[in-house]
Amino acid sequence: MAKKTTVQTFDDIRALIRKFPGSDNGAAGLAIAREPQLTKPPGSLGRLENIAAWLAAWQGRHPPLMDKPRIHVFAGNHGVTGRGVSAYPPEVTVQMVVNFKDGGAAINQLCRMIGAELCVEELGLDQPTRDFTEGPAMDEDECAEAVAFGMDVVTEDTDVLCLGEMGIGNTTSAAAICHGLYGGEAVDWTGPGTGVSGQALVDKAAVVAEAVFLHRKKMIDGLDVMRCVGGRELAAIAGAVIGARLKQVPVLLDGYVCTAAAAVLAGYGDGMLDHCMVAHVSAEPGHKLLLEKLGMPPLLDLGMRLGEASGAALAVSILRAAAACHTGMATFAEAGVTDIE
Amino acid sequence: MAKKTTVQTFDDIRALIRKFPGSDNGAAGLAIAREPQLTKPPGSLGRLENIAAWLAAWQGRHPPLMDKPRIHVFAGNHGVTGRGVSAYPPEVTVQMVVNFKDGGAAINQLCRMIGAELCVEELGLDQPTRDFTEGPAMDEDECAEAVAFGMDVVTEDTDVLCLGEMGIGNTTSAAAICHGLYGGEAVDWTGPGTGVSGQALVDKAAVVAEAVFLHRKKMIDGLDVMRCVGGRELAAIAGAVIGARLKQVPVLLDGYVCTAAAAVLAGYGDGMLDHCMVAHVSAEPGHKLLLEKLGMPPLLDLGMRLGEASGAALAVSILRAAAACHTGMATFAEAGVTDIE
Repeated sequence: MAKKTTVQTFDDIRALIRKFPGSDNGAAGLAIAREPQLTKPPGSLGRLENIAAWLAAWQGRHPPLMDKPRIHVFAGNHGVTGRGVSAYPPEVTVQMVVNFKDGGAAINQLCRMIGAELCVEELGLDQPTRDFTEGPAMDEDECAEAVAFGMDVVTEDTDVLCLGEMGIGNTTSAAAICHGLYGGEAVDWTGPGTGVSGQALVDKAAVVAEAVFLHRKKMIDGLDVMRCVGGRELAAIAGAVIGARLKQVPVLLDGYVCTAAAAVLAGYGDGMLDHCMVAHVSAEPGHKLLLEKLGMPPLLDLGMRLGEASGAALAVSILRAAAACHTGMATFAEAGVTDIE
Repeated sequence: MAKKTTVQTFDDIRALIRKFPGSDNGAAGLAIAREPQLTKPPGSLGRLENIAAWLAAWQGRHPPLMDKPRIHVFAGNHGVTGRGVSAYPPEVTVQMVVNFKDGGAAINQLCRMIGAELCVEELGLDQPTRDFTEGPAMDEDECAEAVAFGMDVVTEDTDVLCLGEMGIGNTTSAAAICHGLYGGEAVDWTGPGTGVSGQALVDKAAVVAEAVFLHRKKMIDGLDVMRCVGGRELAAIAGAVIGARLKQVPVLLDGYVCTAAAAVLAGYGDGMLDHCMVAHVSAEPGHKLLLEKLGMPPLLDLGMRLGEASGAALAVSILRAAAACHTGMATFAEAGVTDIE
């Protein structure tokens, strides 16, 4: 983590979040005014019309641009893998980071397809977080440092920031975050992840329940939840969501782990995640429930559950289509097409 | 319609459909064998994995390619517009064809985005079909000619054929086709189309009911339904679906009108539309019901209801992602990533 951190404590982060800037109503208004003039029946492009206005609102410009998507995949390791929560051993995190760098993973193919650079950020892969069934995953300094790291990777010359993760064990962390934030039963939030089933899935849910019970008195707000049962890559994702808001960059969240990481910010006020869209609903069952809690409908539902920002990269094409139609279409007047009365 | 037709009667067409070739099991088998070797948990790319195998099966090659998508938009006019079924006057069909040629429509922006050529096919726009509440929309020769036209536009050097339509009044035709094929109530199949509501929507459903009742004894099979209540652009779409099957070209169907046109082929045997995927579910309510009848789950659900092949063009990115991941990803062995036992 060579980059200079801009925040050092949870209170620094809380202060930033509570001063989140709103959207650019002027830019959004221009998008909303243009839309009914375009040569199509009103509303017939469905969510693409809302996306165009949303991009304008959070990029702070009209027309919105979709030339420079950026993909950030944050990687971290988790002490809780010692509890047998994953179908794969923890060394796969490092192996997959090598695979990302060599261009062999799914996200590499998707980045190539959309013409986006892939930025892989390693967060201390040789230093897994503590097994959170024994104590907090991170202390405040570690967690704040990861948040700050995520904030700093965001650059203003980004049209949309796609966030994703790699970390064996991190669906267990996501489940514990959701269980910590929203209650319910641990089994509601716990899914197969990389592919556990049967008794191993029952045991995984028990690990989630045990961890949330252990930390219940320390988990006062979202950052506390992140520190107790999160992970470095999840904290960095939350940081990137903060950084994007401050730098007028809209965000595409990927699947369950990524959305859980962002969800720790939702409780600090209204509209904390309004600059984010959820790219797809994961096959991981807790994701659907989480999206209902957040009131965030996904753009895609293709049964994917890979992570790596793969769903977010796929949704870039939807955002591009929205921007292209909004900006490039002729108006009824320009095309000489008869409009409805 | 300058191109040479290859079929002249409904019986010619029926004979072709009943000899539809199957998929290439060898190519599909290679795709299915490769998939579990790729560096991701089994099944974690969800529908993308099935799409890769489907592309291989119907292109008849492995690996599948997605370099050359082709977009065909068929335009036709409908005598039933005299019954006030659309929010727009019928001259808008011609005006929108001009808009397609000038590059101002939504589909132009989407074609540019995916690097595909747009082929706009006009089917006698100065000769609307007969008002099908008074008699059959077309006689057999007219309908067979439109089907043959659609067959002939398909070329073998196409990786996926995206089909779409433009025709004021054609959601009324789609509703009548579905009501004719599947029964139920006319209101179940009738939606706002370009934007009719209230009494106009009630009247539109009454037109659909009236037409299907009038022709009930003549509508023996799918082609009869097409002739009685279809339209030239719909018949051409059915023809393109036939042509694609014969030329090993997978098809992306667009929304309600396009799927209704293809549905007339479904009754001739099992798996008639297996070489087709439905790109998106339209906001037009009858589409969801139709997809349930056909057992074809859509790829996208974005509340779109524009036609013009807009949903199909958008879904090209999903197919490209599937092919890119399937073909470009490293195997566990190549990447040195530890696989599950």
